[in-house]
Amino acid sequence: MLLDPECIPCIIKQAYDSAKRFTSDNTELQFKIVKEACSAVLSIEENSTSPKFSSVIQNIIEKNTGFTNPYKKLKEKNIKEARCYIPYLETIVENSYDKLQMAVRAAIIGNIIDLGANPEFDIEYEVNRITNNNINLDSLKNFKDDLENSNLILYIGDNFEEALFDKILLKQLLPKKIVFAVRSKPILNDITLEDAKILGIDKICRVIESGSKIAGTDLFQCSPEFLNLFEKADLVIAKGQGNFETLLNVNRPVYFLFKVKCNVIARRSGLLVGTSALYLYNITKVVSNANIN
Amino acid sequence: MLLDPECIPCIIKQAYDSAKRFTSDNTELQFKIVKEACSAVLSIEENSTSPKFSSVIQNIIEKNTGFTNPYKKLKEKNIKEARCYIPYLETIVENSYDKLQMAVRAAIIGNIIDLGANPEFDIEYEVNRITNNNINLDSLKNFKDDLENSNLILYIGDNFEEALFDKILLKQLLPKKIVFAVRSKPILNDITLEDAKILGIDKICRVIESGSKIAGTDLFQCSPEFLNLFEKADLVIAKGQGNFETLLNVNRPVYFLFKVKCNVIARRSGLLVGTSALYLYNITKVVSNANIN
Repeated sequence: MLLDPECIPCIIKQAYDSAKRFTSDNTELQFKIVKEACSAVLSIEENSTSPKFSSVIQNIIEKNTGFTNPYKKLKEKNIKEARCYIPYLETIVENSYDKLQMAVRAAIIGNIIDLGANPEFDIEYEVNRITNNNINLDSLKNFKDDLENSNLILYIGDNFEEALFDKILLKQLLPKKIVFAVRSKPILNDITLEDAKILGIDKICRVIESGSKIAGTDLFQCSPEFLNLFEKADLVIAKGQGNFETLLNVNRPVYFLFKVKCNVIARRSGLLVGTSALYLYNITKVVSNANIN
Repeated sequence: MLLDPECIPCIIKQAYDSAKRFTSDNTELQFKIVKEACSAVLSIEENSTSPKFSSVIQNIIEKNTGFTNPYKKLKEKNIKEARCYIPYLETIVENSYDKLQMAVRAAIIGNIIDLGANPEFDIEYEVNRITNNNINLDSLKNFKDDLENSNLILYIGDNFEEALFDKILLKQLLPKKIVFAVRSKPILNDITLEDAKILGIDKICRVIESGSKIAGTDLFQCSPEFLNLFEKADLVIAKGQGNFETLLNVNRPVYFLFKVKCNVIARRSGLLVGTSALYLYNITKVVSNANIN
């Protein structure tokens, strides 16, 4: 989906937040970074996406601060907190009548950990609400049916810390053949190949880099291997807003698992801000409905 | 006080909000406005203030939408709501043991109505909290002493709707000689001379235009008459964040009445975001303290 004008002030705010975080209160450097971010707005391409523009901002941060992986320390801090909730969630899933549904809920909850659109996240609050109805699972029946008929599953990861929660779902998808795709560059707190190995995801399934170097999946950057899998997989699961923003409107069905963190995504998905969802985008259905209407 | 780098994303957000409000969902025009706002960031002067930069943004809105007083209708809508609370507040003040304190509280509450920094305001919520302690009145004793010794009071207004609440305080300041100063141009929902007459403030005291055409008091724009009053008044009361941002650090004591609506003002005032306050800035005191240290 294309960048919305409302994304611009939000991304400039992210530029400022990063500048503040990484410049030790150097106001002059913060001004410089925010001005460079504003300057970058002037050359946004018409068909850009929000995650693509965010990556331009991260380059500005990296150039001005000298950090090449600025969120590394924060990821290490967050993962410690995230780990505390995993045994609890695993117990809930294991004792559920519908393990798959509960694992989907756990994976969606992980999406709250977001240093871009949602830096003030509260994991405990979300974990405590896992069994209530604030998670939209309208597509769960479809998901189960499609899963039943699938051999190959492509699971596109999002954030590093969130992937601990994805592991819970990945285990429920076994013994299907799963490929877990990660970013090809550290961007915000997104998961990389190194991160996936730290979390032991490579012990559950195959892990590949998608080729995308932004906080989403830019198909123009993706490797032939990823593109081939994206086309041939029987089921594609994509985590988080960044993947939603870059993969909505692609030419195949995708199950998005994410929390709606802003007005723009609320408008595009038809869900309220704050809702978490298993959201099926199915181009075939959209086109056939369009034909009927 | 000078513009903080954190003001920039906030003002770009205000540009987007105004663009959305006044362009009837014309996304292309919204992009154009937001891009022009970002472009304006590149030429911010080093000694600029946030209200001064906001006025550049409003000029961009006016140029692109063709509206010369874009907030007129919104002011008319808000004033109707604001009027509902006045009889209640007047009754509370009239029945108070300390009428002046309660009138100060009422005037501060009015400052919640702000279409710039606080567009999601809730008047009823604030009115209901008038008697609780979330209003910082540490300077009230000083204020009463200074008032006692004053003959001429300069009261610098802020927003149009808020001035209904100011009237409650103005009446308590009588029979002192009061001059109420307003903006010289409609900017956001700030009060103008025409507005002050609509509210009947000219029936209580003299009303003058300050000369300032921004959502604050830019002394470089102010008329000789205003500057003379600003120097000679025994007591200066300035309402709202805009006046705080433009008059903090001036060469005379000023009583600011405002609600802290953002991190920047919180840092500069030492008050928490969300606090309302009667805040005394006294240059003499600051300088003498500095000498002691």
